[in-house]
Amino acid sequence: MLRVEAIAIGDELLDGRVTDTNGSRLAAELRARGVKLARVTIVPDDLFTIVEALEAASGRSDAVVCSGGLGPTDDDRTRAAAALWMGASLAFDEACMGRIEARFASVGIEMTPNNRRQASFPAGARVLETEVGTAPGFECVHEGGLRAFFLPGVPQEYRWFLNRHVLPALLGDEAVATARCALKVFGIGESAAEHALEGLALPEGLTLGYRAHFPEIHLTLTAWGLGREEGEARIKEGRAQLLSRLGRHLVAEGDESLPERVGRLLGERGQRVTTAESCTGGMIAAMLTSAPGSSTWFDQGIVTYSNEAKERLASVPPALIEAHGAVSAEVVRAMARGAAAAAGADFAVAVSGVAGPGGGTPQKPVGTVDVAVHTPEGTYARHLEMRPWWGRERIRQVAAHHSLSLLLKVLEGRVGDDPKVSGPWKDQGGQG
Amino acid sequence: MLRVEAIAIGDELLDGRVTDTNGSRLAAELRARGVKLARVTIVPDDLFTIVEALEAASGRSDAVVCSGGLGPTDDDRTRAAAALWMGASLAFDEACMGRIEARFASVGIEMTPNNRRQASFPAGARVLETEVGTAPGFECVHEGGLRAFFLPGVPQEYRWFLNRHVLPALLGDEAVATARCALKVFGIGESAAEHALEGLALPEGLTLGYRAHFPEIHLTLTAWGLGREEGEARIKEGRAQLLSRLGRHLVAEGDESLPERVGRLLGERGQRVTTAESCTGGMIAAMLTSAPGSSTWFDQGIVTYSNEAKERLASVPPALIEAHGAVSAEVVRAMARGAAAAAGADFAVAVSGVAGPGGGTPQKPVGTVDVAVHTPEGTYARHLEMRPWWGRERIRQVAAHHSLSLLLKVLEGRVGDDPKVSGPWKDQGGQG
Repeated sequence: MLRVEAIAIGDELLDGRVTDTNGSRLAAELRARGVKLARVTIVPDDLFTIVEALEAASGRSDAVVCSGGLGPTDDDRTRAAAALWMGASLAFDEACMGRIEARFASVGIEMTPNNRRQASFPAGARVLETEVGTAPGFECVHEGGLRAFFLPGVPQEYRWFLNRHVLPALLGDEAVATARCALKVFGIGESAAEHALEGLALPEGLTLGYRAHFPEIHLTLTAWGLGREEGEARIKEGRAQLLSRLGRHLVAEGDESLPERVGRLLGERGQRVTTAESCTGGMIAAMLTSAPGSSTWFDQGIVTYSNEAKERLASVPPALIEAHGAVSAEVVRAMARGAAAAAGADFAVAVSGVAGPGGGTPQKPVGTVDVAVHTPEGTYARHLEMRPWWGRERIRQVAAHHSLSLLLKVLEGRVGDDPKVSGPWKDQGGQG
Repeated sequence: MLRVEAIAIGDELLDGRVTDTNGSRLAAELRARGVKLARVTIVPDDLFTIVEALEAASGRSDAVVCSGGLGPTDDDRTRAAAALWMGASLAFDEACMGRIEARFASVGIEMTPNNRRQASFPAGARVLETEVGTAPGFECVHEGGLRAFFLPGVPQEYRWFLNRHVLPALLGDEAVATARCALKVFGIGESAAEHALEGLALPEGLTLGYRAHFPEIHLTLTAWGLGREEGEARIKEGRAQLLSRLGRHLVAEGDESLPERVGRLLGERGQRVTTAESCTGGMIAAMLTSAPGSSTWFDQGIVTYSNEAKERLASVPPALIEAHGAVSAEVVRAMARGAAAAAGADFAVAVSGVAGPGGGTPQKPVGTVDVAVHTPEGTYARHLEMRPWWGRERIRQVAAHHSLSLLLKVLEGRVGDDPKVSGPWKDQGGQG
């Protein structure tokens, strides 16, 4: 089994300014390929500490991936440390310098003299060219056989170097993903999702990765070294298996977000949605308008925080609030109907709840939220009871996500599969 | 100089599931006290790897702060590793067990038999009691003199142990902050802020820390070991120095957020604010309602994404949009006036802009945003030109922050100091 470790280099990682994420990125990429990262060491921009960390790694690992300290300033010591460790001199690479100059010219940034340092490498090193920044990386092979990769610390650049240079070099073609799919699920915890997938027999050559993107969980299925056609066929099979277990929690796939998926479906039908928000206070509208091009299917939204605003903007009858309270299925249904009518929209999402910290009662404690989606066929509603200790922002975020997830289920014709949803209600009166 | 390093323990830190943040938290806490963290090592839940990491630390440091691996399951190996490293047996602590049982009872969670493991410690260890979870920590002193602290990995618990047990033990009373102030600034970059503070001669015994909380920068001034009264006096002096350089960028202080500060000022005056948002699409309303108790000064908000919605909900004259375009000072001023009138609010915040990726023109490229704040004295406006490559979400976030920052300046009577703000405009017609 290949033994890989990471060294992250930089004073800014050891004084609280920046948290290193390159180590966990490498960990995730390796795990997806069946390799476990052995360790991460974070050291300052100090020549001898870097050399010592490299020496410790050569005694125990097959490869080390270093990040940071390749910049043009005096603080950046990594290339000197690598040369010292290799027992090599630092050699200036004219050809590489020319490419760096061309990159500076292409992005229109003036090059300063110290940028020339970025074209110096330990003699014998293999230069790793960049297409995403100005700093190249390099690889050295130590006498004991350890392969050491030196990459820029900027996370976007680091990630590009990993996938373009490091993983193929370490793991060969097997490390090249030939097909991939990402399923984004919501409304299920991480351990519940793992439990739901227990005993799954995925097609050979596929790996499954999890990542929490609160409040969603993203599952990534990757095919390794199978050729494109075969990879895609197995991904298709694996995806179907995952969906058979978790399909009802699916809210988006691939690069698309939940609001983008909702928007795409609305756009395809030529229909529009509007919002009427109480406790989420504009979060749902902000989510919807995060999707580029949302103006084609979103026209207006209202935040009806007070009872008067619910009456004024969404035509909610005061007697309804009096009878059921502002946090009730009856009132959110009326909010959704009223908002749809006011906006002339086909669909409307409405939310009312107790986000806390105040406002809870024994009957409706903090975390109680009602969600409704108005549709041309009637209005659907869902009651939520979250934990009070989640806190105001988390309760609001989960409520906003539930409302769009409910809209998605309606648009995809699978709202009937969810026993927690009531409706469609074809209410009398008002705008229903 | 005290030499401290960190060891983070856990398989989940090395497979991409979780990024370690305890190391950078320790780094920030130490730096605030003038000590630099020497290194962070992240190792898996593997007995011998943990022992080896502890041995490496004892050769070079005065103290090591370990996190993780103290849970009740088989995977948690830290206490066994600590005992092996110390050459001690694992001893069960009855008194500690009693306290753990009491904590379980107090939070109403059933205790499982394996929770008993959490009361086992290397013989001779000093138990560090918890008030924030169920797992105690412990401290061992190795024969070489190295002090090793073992803390739970859960970030909230880790942070509590740091401040309660570890930092006072390592740094004595000098490590106890006797006074502190946090200034939150916006509208200035990190390097510009550093530049603005150059040459500042802060009172002795104070340290200044930076932290980027996009789009704000938080500056923390801390007095160490001076006694409360003296510490507070020096903080007052240091705070005045900081404000003399950066005061016009101040948007909040201490635990208060910008929306909370705006809300507090409105609440004190018994006044209310409303919102009319185009490109920010509800983000400003969501920010305002993130403040607990916002219902006393926020009643309703509108998202007027289309021109028709601007006319319908904010009574913007179509001719005005025709003449100036939806992204213009004239239109945002009308949006703010119309929204205030519709809501019967004293103040209104309005934003219109090109967030991208589409919709830019040579005259109004992506990143062009106009912001207005309507007040009883007239309407103020500010024009923003952000970089197109910031991307949609960043442009929206900065625009939302600018709008609340403008409202704050109005409420604090310092809007006249900002040469980039125009107004107050006392427009004719409409609701002005």
